[in-house]
Amino acid sequence: MSLIVLGTVALDNIKTSSGMKKDLLGGSAAHFSMSARLFTIVHLVGIIGADFPKRHIQFLRKKGIDLTSLTVGNEKSFRWTGEYKKGDYNNAITLATELGVLLNYTPEIAHHQRNLDNVFLANIDPDVQMKLLELMGKPKLIGLDSMNLWIEHKRQSLFKLMKKVDLFVANDGEACAITKESNLVKAAKALRKMGPKLIVVKKGEHGVLFYSDNFMFSFPAYPVDHVVDPTGAGDTFAGGLMGYLTKTKKINDKNLRKAVLYATTLASFNVEGFGMAKTAPLTMAKVNERMKELVKFIAI
Amino acid sequence: MSLIVLGTVALDNIKTSSGMKKDLLGGSAAHFSMSARLFTIVHLVGIIGADFPKRHIQFLRKKGIDLTSLTVGNEKSFRWTGEYKKGDYNNAITLATELGVLLNYTPEIAHHQRNLDNVFLANIDPDVQMKLLELMGKPKLIGLDSMNLWIEHKRQSLFKLMKKVDLFVANDGEACAITKESNLVKAAKALRKMGPKLIVVKKGEHGVLFYSDNFMFSFPAYPVDHVVDPTGAGDTFAGGLMGYLTKTKKINDKNLRKAVLYATTLASFNVEGFGMAKTAPLTMAKVNERMKELVKFIAI
Repeated sequence: MSLIVLGTVALDNIKTSSGMKKDLLGGSAAHFSMSARLFTIVHLVGIIGADFPKRHIQFLRKKGIDLTSLTVGNEKSFRWTGEYKKGDYNNAITLATELGVLLNYTPEIAHHQRNLDNVFLANIDPDVQMKLLELMGKPKLIGLDSMNLWIEHKRQSLFKLMKKVDLFVANDGEACAITKESNLVKAAKALRKMGPKLIVVKKGEHGVLFYSDNFMFSFPAYPVDHVVDPTGAGDTFAGGLMGYLTKTKKINDKNLRKAVLYATTLASFNVEGFGMAKTAPLTMAKVNERMKELVKFIAI
Repeated sequence: MSLIVLGTVALDNIKTSSGMKKDLLGGSAAHFSMSARLFTIVHLVGIIGADFPKRHIQFLRKKGIDLTSLTVGNEKSFRWTGEYKKGDYNNAITLATELGVLLNYTPEIAHHQRNLDNVFLANIDPDVQMKLLELMGKPKLIGLDSMNLWIEHKRQSLFKLMKKVDLFVANDGEACAITKESNLVKAAKALRKMGPKLIVVKKGEHGVLFYSDNFMFSFPAYPVDHVVDPTGAGDTFAGGLMGYLTKTKKINDKNLRKAVLYATTLASFNVEGFGMAKTAPLTMAKVNERMKELVKFIAI
């Protein structure tokens, strides 16, 4: 089984109560890959500018991520500058977005990548996400993430896309914004009716709710007592989820619960450092060690 | 093992998006008792006015709650009028509080009640809570709940009391307000340092975090998709917690997890109806049935 992800590869400037960092390797596809690579080879589809630091690219390559379809565009690299206020890590405050290469991006993939099994459409313009889907053969599992910007400004494109995917990942605010429900269980049910069979609602520090026709479950988050930078936590979560599902192959209740546990564990590392400081050095041994702690924490 | 609770017995006027109800039987000790009576005989300590409806008293008595120390005062009964905005059930908006009999209340108990094993100080003025404690012999387990009003206006009384109790129950907002921490894990650790060995932080629809020196755990809430009225959910939770701990006697990791599961289950019934509409008719069979669903929902 194999996994391909489309999303952004960015330069992030981030300010939190722990400090400020510039030119961090970031973006939805990069964070996703850094997490999913622990379970499988990840093919990354995205675009950077010629100004993108070589060290970031070498870094991704050294982690075993396939960069065949990481295009270099003519514009500047995509940049995000954001801030989190102390104690409010669920709400990123965007200070600046420089789209650069993303402005006219059309995803391209190598011929041999068309038949990869599992696809994840990480956060990027839903029209771009649709274009990747059109390039793919018959994926076994398609996952989708989005964000408030697209929910607000590209609602119809997003809704069209939702009909074509199997798994939808949203945070609580997004789930409520899409469905106009305030109750998360109702929101999850409403998302299911929009297309995807598997609904994952992330609640940040409060954990996650999974919904499908046949079963639902919920886990708390791993208890992190010092959040440094939550940027990419959702992508890291999705990387663990799709990574494990790609490795385990069979999608059922038991495996989905385990995939969500891995996703939760990986996201907990992500928030403990700026950018990929805590996820990049991870080995499966370290992940499994923390997952054991998580299991002890939430066992009945 | 036996259980005594001090708290308010109130007449509630409540408005939610599901409607408006007047003169409901409410109050912290009443909701607590309605939940804990499923596990043990509960001795209720509190005060009502002569205007308190007889039907409410008969109702509590019929449920097997010991009303020996429910005093009738000369003032009017305590009344609370409040509202919840749709989708924001974690924040009660107080429209009116008529203290009445609570203004000069000093708890009194019968001689034979002094040696009851377990004590719960449900939400009421911390000076009044302290007075009950002074009347008791040597309880095996003392639990305490409070609210923002006392955290703000009777901080020193509350802190003094916290040194004398074993178990402290707070919602997330209260835990942060007491400790001035924004991270719940840090807040729980800080509460532990203030005295109580067992810390229970309730997060409403997001479930609960338990903290002690030797172990911690967290469970999501039971997924309720139609919240009618959350008034008393915290007291109902505490009643299930203390009720089960009174029944099971031994306080350890396993029993605390089970007590929190019962507490979570009972609170989920509470929010599904106005006042005690859904908790009063409960039998242990019905509680166990939903608890099985909860276990399935949160199992790893």
